[in-house]
Amino acid sequence: MTQSHEEGGRQEGSQPSLPLRAQEVARWDRVHDVVIVGHGAAGGAAAIEAARAGADTLVIERMSRGGGAAALSTGLVYFGGGTAIQKACGFEDSVEDMKAFVEMAAGRGADPERIRLYCENSVEHFEWLRALGIEYRESYYAKKSTHPLTDDCLMYTGNEQTWTFAQRARPVPRGHKPAREGEAGGYLMEMILQATAEAGAYALNDCRVRCLVQNDEGRIVGIKALLEGKEIFVQARRGVLLAAGGFIANKDMLARHAPDLLNCNHDVGTIGDDGRGIRMGMGAGAEAINMSEGLILSAYYPPEDHLFGIFVDAHGQRFINEDAYIGRGGDAMIKKADGIAYLIVDDSIYDRSQSIFKLAAVEESFEALERALQMPEGALVHTLEAYNGFAERGEDPTFRKQAKWLRALDSPPYAALDCRVGHSVFAGLTLGGLSALATGEALSSDGTIVPGLYVAGRNAAGLCREGRTYASGLSIGDATYFGRLAGRAMAAADALR
Amino acid sequence: MTQSHEEGGRQEGSQPSLPLRAQEVARWDRVHDVVIVGHGAAGGAAAIEAARAGADTLVIERMSRGGGAAALSTGLVYFGGGTAIQKACGFEDSVEDMKAFVEMAAGRGADPERIRLYCENSVEHFEWLRALGIEYRESYYAKKSTHPLTDDCLMYTGNEQTWTFAQRARPVPRGHKPAREGEAGGYLMEMILQATAEAGAYALNDCRVRCLVQNDEGRIVGIKALLEGKEIFVQARRGVLLAAGGFIANKDMLARHAPDLLNCNHDVGTIGDDGRGIRMGMGAGAEAINMSEGLILSAYYPPEDHLFGIFVDAHGQRFINEDAYIGRGGDAMIKKADGIAYLIVDDSIYDRSQSIFKLAAVEESFEALERALQMPEGALVHTLEAYNGFAERGEDPTFRKQAKWLRALDSPPYAALDCRVGHSVFAGLTLGGLSALATGEALSSDGTIVPGLYVAGRNAAGLCREGRTYASGLSIGDATYFGRLAGRAMAAADALR
Repeated sequence: MTQSHEEGGRQEGSQPSLPLRAQEVARWDRVHDVVIVGHGAAGGAAAIEAARAGADTLVIERMSRGGGAAALSTGLVYFGGGTAIQKACGFEDSVEDMKAFVEMAAGRGADPERIRLYCENSVEHFEWLRALGIEYRESYYAKKSTHPLTDDCLMYTGNEQTWTFAQRARPVPRGHKPAREGEAGGYLMEMILQATAEAGAYALNDCRVRCLVQNDEGRIVGIKALLEGKEIFVQARRGVLLAAGGFIANKDMLARHAPDLLNCNHDVGTIGDDGRGIRMGMGAGAEAINMSEGLILSAYYPPEDHLFGIFVDAHGQRFINEDAYIGRGGDAMIKKADGIAYLIVDDSIYDRSQSIFKLAAVEESFEALERALQMPEGALVHTLEAYNGFAERGEDPTFRKQAKWLRALDSPPYAALDCRVGHSVFAGLTLGGLSALATGEALSSDGTIVPGLYVAGRNAAGLCREGRTYASGLSIGDATYFGRLAGRAMAAADALR
Repeated sequence: MTQSHEEGGRQEGSQPSLPLRAQEVARWDRVHDVVIVGHGAAGGAAAIEAARAGADTLVIERMSRGGGAAALSTGLVYFGGGTAIQKACGFEDSVEDMKAFVEMAAGRGADPERIRLYCENSVEHFEWLRALGIEYRESYYAKKSTHPLTDDCLMYTGNEQTWTFAQRARPVPRGHKPAREGEAGGYLMEMILQATAEAGAYALNDCRVRCLVQNDEGRIVGIKALLEGKEIFVQARRGVLLAAGGFIANKDMLARHAPDLLNCNHDVGTIGDDGRGIRMGMGAGAEAINMSEGLILSAYYPPEDHLFGIFVDAHGQRFINEDAYIGRGGDAMIKKADGIAYLIVDDSIYDRSQSIFKLAAVEESFEALERALQMPEGALVHTLEAYNGFAERGEDPTFRKQAKWLRALDSPPYAALDCRVGHSVFAGLTLGGLSALATGEALSSDGTIVPGLYVAGRNAAGLCREGRTYASGLSIGDATYFGRLAGRAMAAADALR
C-alpha cells in the first residue's frame, strides 16, 4: 500500500491523503482565522457566518469560480415548519410535521440532533437565505416535477404524498425554489458568493488544496495548496473546514465504498467531487461513515404523465409505486429490479418531445410487447391486465400509487421506455462522508474530536443517510444550514497561540 | 459524546474503545511475544502457528472455554482446488475454478489478494487442518442442506449450482464437514483448542480484555484485562491479535452500521460477539470498513423438498430462485420483499415434522390462499398458475430455478409457510470489520499500518464482503486461514526492545 501527500492530478485514487507535519512547513504564506476548502453551498454559508462573526476568513476554490454542485442544481432547498411562502400559499406546517417527515427522509442511521436542529431552525434558515437577497415568489407549483421551468417557489420534492410516507406524516410541500425560471441553482450560488464577499471573507479561486497540515498535538493548523503552479502554505488559526463535495466523480472510491453507485452514468456534481476532501479528512484521522449510501436518480418525471405508466422489471413484474420520488424509484430500479426496468406507457401518455427515455419496444398489443421485451410468457400481459383492472376501480392494492395517477393503459400502441442501466441516465450523489458533530467538528474513529478540523456539505455524513428516502432540497439545505453552524463554531474556537 | 476506556459490562454501546497509554501501566503482570484476544477459529489457528514458530503465545478467552461462534456451527469449511476428498469423491476442481467462484462469493469490495491466497493455498490449508487430527470422511452428501445429520464430508454449500453462478463458474462441491454426525463445529474447535495446547500456546479462560495498550509511538504493546475480578496488564512484545468475533450480538452497533441485520432474531455467534474487538481496534486508530454488510439467513432448507415451493412477497410475486443459498434467499426476503415473504407449498411437499416455519394459511384453492394472505386479487393465483405452467414444461424463465426443483404445485391443500420478519427465524452474521492486510496487519483510515495490531476472523473485513453472495464454510475458512497468516506474521515481527 503506497501513500503520498500528493496524488497525481490525473488519478485521484481511493486512498486517504495524509496530512503534512507542521514542522515541515518552512513558512506560512498566509495566515487566517478560518480556512474553508471549497466554495460551494456549505463553504459559502460557512464563510458568511465566520466572517460576520469577525473571523478573518479565507475560502479556497479549485475552480475559477465558486458554486460547486449546488450551482448546477435546481436550487431547491427543503424548508418547512411554517415559512412565509408556505403560509402565503395556504399550507399549514409545523416543526413537528416537518420532523415526522424529515426523520423518514433522513433514513436509517441519521443523527437525531441534526434532524432536530434542521427542523426547529428551518424558518430562521429560510429567512437567513432570503436576507442574502435571494428572491422567492409566493407561489405554489402543483405539478409533479423535479425541474420546474417556471419561477414558482413551493413544491413537493420527495415522497411526502406517497405511500407509506403520507400515511405517517401529514403531507406538506417544503421544496423552495428561488424566483428564477428553469434551474435556479446558479442564481442561488451567485447570491451566496456575493454575500461571502460582502461579509468580508476572502475568496481564492483556481487554487487546489493538496493536503492538511497537522501539528504535533494532532491539531489541524492549516493547508498546503497549489496556486498558479506554486505551493502555498496557509495557516488556519481557528479551524479548517472541509467543504469540497462528495465523491461521485471518483470511480475508485465508488468501487471501494459504494458499488451500487457505479450504475450511475451522470454525476450530480462537478469534476471536483472527487472525494479529496473526505480523503484528506480520513488522512487526518477523521472517520468516514455511511460510505455505501447515495442517491440514485432516474428522471422519470417530468413529464408527470409518466406517472400514469407502470414500471416493470425483467420478469414483467411491478416493483415500486410509480409516483415515488425519482430517488426512491431509481434506488428500486437498481436494488429491486437489478438494473433492468421499463416504464410501460400507452399512446395517451407518451409524448416523444417530453420523454428522456429511448423506446425499447412499441407494439399494438400487450402480448406483442411482452414478446418484444423477451419476458416470460404471460407475465407482462398479466401485470398490465391486473393493473388496468384495478385502475378502473381507482385503486392500486399492489403498490399503492395514489389514485390520481391511476388510469387504465388501453390506448395502443403500447411502449416500453428503456430505463435499464446502460440504456438510460442514472444520476448519482454520494451521501457518505466524514463523521462530525452538528457543529461540524470532525470525529475520529475513536469517537474523539479531531482538533481544528471541521466538515460540512457532502464532505460530511450529514442530515440524509439513505438515498431511497431522500427528498430534493435536503442536500443543499443540509450544506447551507450545517455550513453556517460550522462557520460560527470555527469563529468561536480557540485560536492557535 | 462520552468516551471511556472501559464501558460497563451491561451495555456495550457502539462507541470505539480507547486504548490505554503505556505510561499508565504501572507493571506488566505477564509478558508474551504474542497476545491473542479470543480463542475461536481465528484465534486458535493463529495461536497454533505463532507457537509453532517459536513465539511465546498467550490466547485469552472471555468464556470458560474457547470455541467461539465456530463451535456452534456445522463445522463446514470451504476448501477446493482439488482436495483429497474432492478427488476421492470423483470431483475435479482447480484453483482457477475455485477462484472463479470465490470471486463471486466474496462479493463486491472483496480483496483480490485474499481471494488469491485463499484459493491457491486451499489444499495446503485443508491438509493443515487434517494434520491437527480433524477427521474427514471420503464421502459426498448429495442433498441440498445446510445441516446434514450424517458424518459425510463433501457438499455444495452455496450458490455453485444456481443461476447465475453456475453459468459463470463450473459447479464443484467445496464444503468440507468433519466426520461427525450433526453439527460438527464443536468437534472442529475441540481439535483446534487441543492443538493450541499441544503447540505450546498458553490459554487463559474467563478473562475479559478491556482495552488495548498503546505506547507513545502509536504501537500496540499489550492489553488490559479482567481476570477473577482483578485488572491485569499483559505486554505483547511482537503483536496483539484481535480475533474476538463480529458484532451481531450488539444491537447498538447494528443500528449504527448494519440496520438491515436488525431484522435478524437469531445470532450466528455467541453473546461474546458484541463487537468489542472491532471497537478496541477502532479506538486504536484502525479503520472499520464494510460495516453495513452481513449474512441474513432464512433456513428454508432442509428439507430440500421446500425447494419445490415458491417464495412470494406481499404482492403475490416471486422474487428469487428458490434453490439459492439460504443467505441469498434471506437477503432477498429483506431487501427485495421488504421482509414479507411466504413459501408456497402443496400437500406433496409439506412435511410438518420437517418444517421450521409456522403456517400462515392452509387452503384448498389458490384463490382461497390469496384471500387468506390478503394479497391483491388475482396476484397469487396468476403467479401460481404461471409457475405451474412453466414447471410442467421443466423451465423457469422467470427466476431460473434449476429444472430438478420444478414441479407443478397441484396437490391441495396449499399452504403458505410464514417466512416474514417477526414470524420466522432470520439468523445474522456480520461481515464488516477492521481493515487489514492479508497478513492481519491492521490498517488505519490513513492507509498506514497500526504497528503491533493484527486482526483476523470476524474482527476483520475478511474474504467475504457481501451476504447475498456468501457460501457456508467461507467464514470459518477465512478465520482459520488468515488467522494462520496473522499468527506467523506476529511470530516473525520485530520484538519490542
